[in-house]
Amino acid sequence: MSGPATVTAAILVIGDEILSGRTKDRNIGYIAEYLARVGVDVREARVVPDVEDEIVAALDALKGRYDYVVTTGGIGPTHDDITADAVARAFGVPIGEDPRAMAIMMERYLPADLTPARRRMARIPVGADLIDNPISKAPGFRIGNVFVLAGVPSVMQAMLDFAVKSMRTGVVMLAETVEAGPAPEGRYGDALGRIAAAHPEVSIGSYPSFKDGRFNNQIVVRGKDEAAVAAARQAVEAMLVALQSDGKLL
Amino acid sequence: MSGPATVTAAILVIGDEILSGRTKDRNIGYIAEYLARVGVDVREARVVPDVEDEIVAALDALKGRYDYVVTTGGIGPTHDDITADAVARAFGVPIGEDPRAMAIMMERYLPADLTPARRRMARIPVGADLIDNPISKAPGFRIGNVFVLAGVPSVMQAMLDFAVKSMRTGVVMLAETVEAGPAPEGRYGDALGRIAAAHPEVSIGSYPSFKDGRFNNQIVVRGKDEAAVAAARQAVEAMLVALQSDGKLL
Repeated sequence: MSGPATVTAAILVIGDEILSGRTKDRNIGYIAEYLARVGVDVREARVVPDVEDEIVAALDALKGRYDYVVTTGGIGPTHDDITADAVARAFGVPIGEDPRAMAIMMERYLPADLTPARRRMARIPVGADLIDNPISKAPGFRIGNVFVLAGVPSVMQAMLDFAVKSMRTGVVMLAETVEAGPAPEGRYGDALGRIAAAHPEVSIGSYPSFKDGRFNNQIVVRGKDEAAVAAARQAVEAMLVALQSDGKLL
Repeated sequence: MSGPATVTAAILVIGDEILSGRTKDRNIGYIAEYLARVGVDVREARVVPDVEDEIVAALDALKGRYDYVVTTGGIGPTHDDITADAVARAFGVPIGEDPRAMAIMMERYLPADLTPARRRMARIPVGADLIDNPISKAPGFRIGNVFVLAGVPSVMQAMLDFAVKSMRTGVVMLAETVEAGPAPEGRYGDALGRIAAAHPEVSIGSYPSFKDGRFNNQIVVRGKDEAAVAAARQAVEAMLVALQSDGKLL
């Protein structure tokens, strides 16, 4: 899925609370935007429940297909936190209390406070590297091409800052937005399709939003070659101007 | 995946703009919460790009595994709207301009305004039922167990109201929330794990959030049997009270 200039990733969100709708996921959007900015293209995202077989199946599908997989959720101290065990199983490695993770936990907790539940957070698959958690200490980890982060957004975000440092990155995808205003997509769709066909080195999307009873559209040109993106953007702008002056955008 | 009392679904979000982080998905959370309320359990969600092979592969994986699949995105008038064609391919049926959809479009647009781009929105796989779009008319559709909805949240939401009417529904998953407050999860994790083990007919989750520099936790008991949910909830509350009075939640 990737050449030297392209590095790909998938996001795997783990948690019953997302699939029940109780918690609204904010991690997919954050990670996608962050990785795009550093030159890693997110190609797929999945949300799975706190069920080990489901987590393992998703990891199996994703880790062979993309350069990286970033998971969120399921690494806390309670019985429903089963991500580390699932990741160990997906990689076929043992898992146990990691001395480095235990050392971090012991800096934070008095021995009497290191409950079995808290010690669960030191369970790390053998062969993994730890990922710093500056907020609540209990670390994430990286094994192979899989980065295992917390689910709480602020903790996940701090871990991601650290995790990205060890990722290979590619050419950043450039994205330029042309405001198409309230002109209906159906008015410019044919012309836009011709521009897309004439500029195969970029991808062009048209994105309507709906607010206060009316649509507003943006056309986005994405690509890795600056000149190609600029050329397609100019073609889109010229098309809108021409339709406008012909009275065809009303 | 389902007995008479359980009806399952997956959500498939289609769109480059979600994977680039440009648009933050709000549909997964909305659909998940809505379906939970009517008795359809969302078991998985995926986000895929505007690439026909990817959409078809995801549909193939999901439609055989769950009772229903709800898709969002990719049914507008522009060249990047390829969901209908992908769904037709996944079901192995032809696709063309649907007379019912054309009739709807003709109510809205004068013949001169029915551009080829707009006519794309009348392309519906053969054998599908239309889904009303009270906001912008161009319909969604249902074929087999797959419901194809718009990506713009307000339009998607209106279509979902209509779509759900033709879904079989199961017993509603009950969810009761116990406020655990700022007590660290690690303080009650062991006791909670014992309660979870003693109440296998429910699932129990512990969900931390982090705000203004501190954690706050909620424990959620979920299940389909009211008495079982109530019993587990009472056990959780009693556990917190006991730990509290022992000074063990500090």
